[in-house]
Parts: sequence; C-alpha cells; structure tokens
Amino acid sequence: MIEIESLLRDMEAIRAQPPLVHNITNYVVMNNTANALLSIGASPVMAHAREEVEEMASIASALVLNMGTLEPAWVEAMLLAGKTAKAKNTPVIFDPVGAGATSYRNVVCKQIIEECKPDIIRGNASEIIALYTTQNQTKGVDSTVSSGEALESAKALALETGSVVVISGATDYITDGKEVETVENGSPLMPRVTGMGCTATAVIGAFAAVNRNYLQAALHGMAMMGIAGEIASGKACGTGTMQVLFLDELGLLDEQSVRRTIR
Amino acid sequence: MIEIESLLRDMEAIRAQPPLVHNITNYVVMNNTANALLSIGASPVMAHAREEVEEMASIASALVLNMGTLEPAWVEAMLLAGKTAKAKNTPVIFDPVGAGATSYRNVVCKQIIEECKPDIIRGNASEIIALYTTQNQTKGVDSTVSSGEALESAKALALETGSVVVISGATDYITDGKEVETVENGSPLMPRVTGMGCTATAVIGAFAAVNRNYLQAALHGMAMMGIAGEIASGKACGTGTMQVLFLDELGLLDEQSVRRTIR
Amino acid sequence: MIEIESLLRDMEAIRAQPPLVHNITNYVVMNNTANALLSIGASPVMAHAREEVEEMASIASALVLNMGTLEPAWVEAMLLAGKTAKAKNTPVIFDPVGAGATSYRNVVCKQIIEECKPDIIRGNASEIIALYTTQNQTKGVDSTVSSGEALESAKALALETGSVVVISGATDYITDGKEVETVENGSPLMPRVTGMGCTATAVIGAFAAVNRNYLQAALHGMAMMGIAGEIASGKACGTGTMQVLFLDELGLLDEQSVRRTIR
Repeated sequence: MIEIESLLRDMEAIRAQPPLVHNITNYVVMNNTANALLSIGASPVMAHAREEVEEMASIASALVLNMGTLEPAWVEAMLLAGKTAKAKNTPVIFDPVGAGATSYRNVVCKQIIEECKPDIIRGNASEIIALYTTQNQTKGVDSTVSSGEALESAKALALETGSVVVISGATDYITDGKEVETVENGSPLMPRVTGMGCTATAVIGAFAAVNRNYLQAALHGMAMMGIAGEIASGKACGTGTMQVLFLDELGLLDEQSVRRTIR
Repeated sequence: MIEIESLLRDMEAIRAQPPLVHNITNYVVMNNTANALLSIGASPVMAHAREEVEEMASIASALVLNMGTLEPAWVEAMLLAGKTAKAKNTPVIFDPVGAGATSYRNVVCKQIIEECKPDIIRGNASEIIALYTTQNQTKGVDSTVSSGEALESAKALALETGSVVVISGATDYITDGKEVETVENGSPLMPRVTGMGCTATAVIGAFAAVNRNYLQAALHGMAMMGIAGEIASGKACGTGTMQVLFLDELGLLDEQSVRRTIR
Repeated sequence: MIEIESLLRDMEAIRAQPPLVHNITNYVVMNNTANALLSIGASPVMAHAREEVEEMASIASALVLNMGTLEPAWVEAMLLAGKTAKAKNTPVIFDPVGAGATSYRNVVCKQIIEECKPDIIRGNASEIIALYTTQNQTKGVDSTVSSGEALESAKALALETGSVVVISGATDYITDGKEVETVENGSPLMPRVTGMGCTATAVIGAFAAVNRNYLQAALHGMAMMGIAGEIASGKACGTGTMQVLFLDELGLLDEQSVRRTIR
C-alpha cells in the first residue's frame, strides 16, 4: 500500500538535492531518459567508456544499467560500473530489455545479475519470466503468459537474487519476494511510446538514490510514472504528444495532483 | 495508381498482428523510428551486436538496414543480419543515407546491395543517383539533378539489382524498373525534420512484413507517410511540433482521413 | 554589444545557403542537434567512423566536436576530423561536456585543445573552470563557483588557447580573452531540457560557417538560442513542450521577433 506522504517526501528530496544518476543505457531512449530525470529534478549523466565508468559510478548516487542496445564493450562497462557501485553501496538498478529474445541477451542478464547484484530489476512480464527461467536454465521465454504467472516468476526471482523485482504493465507489481505492492495508475498510451519502461527504470534510480528502502523506492518510482502518465494521456492527442506531455507532467506533479490522481 | 482499399488492408494488418521490425539504424533517428513503428501498430526492435543480430533477424518479420552513422562493426552486423533475413525470405529494406558523400559510404552501399540483395531501397534523389553511379563505378554524385534524372537512375538501379527503388521528395517515386508509382501527399515541413526519410524506410519495412508485393508495400508505406505528414503539417507551428504531431497522425489515420487526404 | 543588423545578416546567410555542419557528438543529443540545425536552416551531418571523418570534415563548412558520450574510437575520430578541418581553415567548435567529472575527460579535453586548436569552445561554468585548471594541471573542478570566477577562467583559457570561449548560464559570456560580450536572453527552463548546451554549440557552428569573426559568430549563436528559448518558454507548459516549441521558434525567428525580444 503506497503512503502518499512518503512518496511526496521522496519527490521533494530529489528536487531539493538532485541526485546524480549514472546511466549506461540504450541509444533509443537516452534522450527521453535524460529528460525524464531532469523533469523530476534529478541530474542525469550518460557515460559508457571503460576508461571512465568506474570513476563516474563512484561519484553517482545511483547506477542504472539498461541492455536495450547491448554489445560486448557496453556490457563490460556495465559490469565495471556495477561492481564499483556495489562496492560503494550505491544502488544499482537493472533493466533487462529484450531478455529472452536472443541467447546473447540471456547470457548477459545472467552475468549482470551474478556480478553486479542489482538492488532493483524492472522489466515487462515477458522479460521477468525470461529472466527467471534463464536463471534456472530452463526452457526459455513464453510470451503468452498472464501477469499472475509473471508475478510468481518475479517473486521467485526476487528471493533467489535478493533484488526487488518490478513488473510493468496495466497493473505494475513490485516485490521483494515476500511483500507485493501494486500500482494501478497509468494509461494504455504509455506502452505505445518507446522507452517508457526504460524511463521507469531510470526514475526508480533517482528514488533509490534518496530512499534506501528499495521496495518503497521502486514503488514510488512506478507510482510517479503512472500518475504522470495518466494525467498526460488525458491531454495527449496521440503517441507523439504523449511523449512530450508526459515529460511536462513529471515536472509539474505536486501534492494536489498526486492526491487527486492516485488510486 | 494507389488502391485505397489495399492500403487500408495493409494498415489494418499491421495493427491487427504487429510485425516485429528489426532495425539496424543510425543514432540520430532511433527514437523517432521506434516511435513511428509503434504509432502505426508495429513492434520495433533495435539490435546491432554481431553476437545476436542473426538470431534477432531470424525472428523478425522485416529487417531495416540504415547506414546513417555507419562504422565497420555496424556494417558487419548489417551484413550478417541481411544474409540471415534473405535466407529466411524475410524482407530486407535498405536506406543508403548519405550515399555519395564519402568513398566509405559508397563502398558500404555496394557491399550491402551485393551481399544482402535488399528487396526495397529508399533514398532521396541525390542518394539514389549516387547509388546508381557507384554501382556502375562512374563519377560520383551530382547533387543538382532533377527528379526526372533521379527517376532514370532509380529505374536502372531497380533493373540491375532486382530491388524496388523509392525516391523520396516533393513527389515520391516508387519503381521496380518497369512500373513507376508516385505519391503526391506530403509537406515541405517534412524534410526540415531530421529522420523523416529514415522513418519512411522503417515504415516501409512494416508494410513489407504484411505485403510481399514489394512495389505495393513501398507505395503504401510512402502514402501513409505522406498523408500523415500532410495532416500533421496543417496543425504544426514549426519543425518541433511537426515531429510530434506527425507521430500522433500516424497512429490516428483511419479510412476517413485517408480518403479525405489522399491525392 | 550585439548588433542586431549583423545577427540578422548571419541568420539570413544560414537560411540562404545552408552550411553543412559536421557533428561528432553524443548519443543523447544527436536528434535535437540535427533538428535545431535544420530549424535554423543549416544542413547537419553526423559521421564518426575513422574511415570517413576526414573526407566528411573536408566537405563541411564547420566541424562540431562534442565529447558527451566519449570513448576512444570516437576521440580518435574527433582528432582526425579536427586536424582536417584546421588544415582547410574550416571552423572547429568544441563542447567539453562533463569536463572535470573524470580524469579520462580531462585527458581528452587537453588532447582535443592541443591537437585540434578549436576556434570556439562552449561549456557551462563548471566545465570552463575545469578546462582551465586542467590545462594548468592544478586541482580539478570546484562546482560551487560564481560566474565571475568562471569568467576569469574563460578569459585566461581564451588567451592561452587562442579560442573564443563561451560560458552558458543565466547570463552567457563570450570572450576572446580581451573583449567580453554577454547575452541576457534565455529562460530557466532551458537547463532543464537535456542537450540545450550541446545544441548551442552546434548552432554556433552554423554561425561560424558564415561569419569568420568567431567572437561575433559565437555571440550570434548564443543570442539566437537565448531569444528562441525565451519565446518558447513563454508558450511551454513544462520541459517536454519546451524542447519541442524551442525547435519551432528557432525556425520562426525573424527581424520582428528578434527586435522585440533581444535585451
């Protein structure tokens, strides 16, 4: 159950003292992600060269690893940055984009989870199931699963890895393997804009930077995404305006609009 | 001559069963391209690592190769993916961005055309002429040519390569070397937004996934671009709003707006 | 002191004969940068492969080097392109994104300044100070400095390197080490949109292509940015609409709106 006071406190903490969020993410969403982080008041930095990722991760308040357009040099950078962040007790958030789609993605997921021990993992239902089955070397991804089945995978994955696991969808589920939180806000327009999931992962990064209760941080991040998305979709005329108005709303959210919109 | 029924049927087919369109494309346009594909109802994926492109191409319904920000590793990935797609009879669409601008681009064009045998090639007049002259090892690109001259190059290129060739411009030309189709819809604001051509190539990819008559698929893709662009430009205040409203219109197009706008 | 006639003359020169601006820039801003250049009437090209950067730089009218998401292969390309541009007397504009954040960035800054001798350098206050102290191998970056202190660094850096140095901020400063020009236009929404600084650097590139008085070119570029930003921010509802409306205004600026808005 989300506590509005606590969500507002985190939102305010981000705006009051912008946390530096280091993103090693994919080409498609870099601009959106950076803008979303700026909109909520955080300070994004994108850096992926092995020559500097450890130094950058060590000055950041959160590290977001997203394998959307992965390749070996980037994976190497993610591993270097991830280990640095863990060593400094900086939160690591992992977005397993396209897990299950290719064997290379599965190998990389396994490696990032084992070596970086992400504090929070966020994916859609297919990705979370793929991640769980890959971890257990079983039969691969089944894309026609219900949220309920994804939730079981999420819980098992959380228990196995020690990560908080988030499933994005019409209902978002956030679990540490024992407790399960949900977010009902959002809009069907959101999955029709590219990078909304990736943006959610980055936004969770900013919340994790100011709140070390990662179940709560992930819940707050998803709630802010859902609320801003729901308000924006009420004003949008299509997917293009949705992308733009969503950024506006992330920056405009306040106590009143949160209280009015949250479910 | 475009048949409206047939265009609407393809649009509906994309929306009914979203084809997975695998893009190996340039950094500038990845976000727009992904959003445009989502707007028309298709499912975009961007993946370029040699470790996975063959696997990704083999599950895709169309492959789009765009050399806008090319470099050797990406070209290698394009060739691997292109051969995989051809072997599986999956349509390959090629966008020779900047053909003629540097010798490296000319070499890569030649290689992609020879090794991947794209089903459809889309470029602007300069690029198509550069492509044709490069194929024939003559004197390079003349950027001050008329569309008529580009059309002759396009027809010759189509006959030589077996590809359907598309020239984007005020009038779009689509030819297999024998027949020539045209699209008159569009707006002068379109070339002032980056990546509109690249988006057209990706949209054609989605149409090719649902219609194996590639002359028709290319015609339908260009028609949808032109119609959505023309409607969006009537609402836009400049190049920024044009980019956004164009995505809205791609998603909103229906029988009525198509019939009202098509020329 | 800005001369409005002279600013308008440069704006018109760009629109009348679009200069080709070659950008080797970061992934986050490529789309914005390309769109901003198109909006002001210039012709952007993004190319970074060492196989072609020299050839591309040699046909360009300005070269913009931006190290936002740097890595060794890209730095090598920047150096190759930069030397080519200098040899042809083509203006080189450098954006030291994140200077001072990591030692790798400092090393690269030093190398680009020494080997490419940029005609214009643009950064925020922290970056300019970091750049100056790095050049002088002292103690790194202090992020809590006033604009005044940054101005002293900028002047010293300009004298030392021979570059015109631009500090973006609430007030922009443009100096060749002797003269100091300022731009007061702008909006607090601008730094909340990612890539506004990078866009300024690219826009300056277009002005440098048409005006070899680089102090004036940089002043004009910053003035156009500030004026368009100020008008756009009056219409924007947040950071998302700001990004979009800013592109509109860049394209719409005319004598009347410049005269009405400039301070």
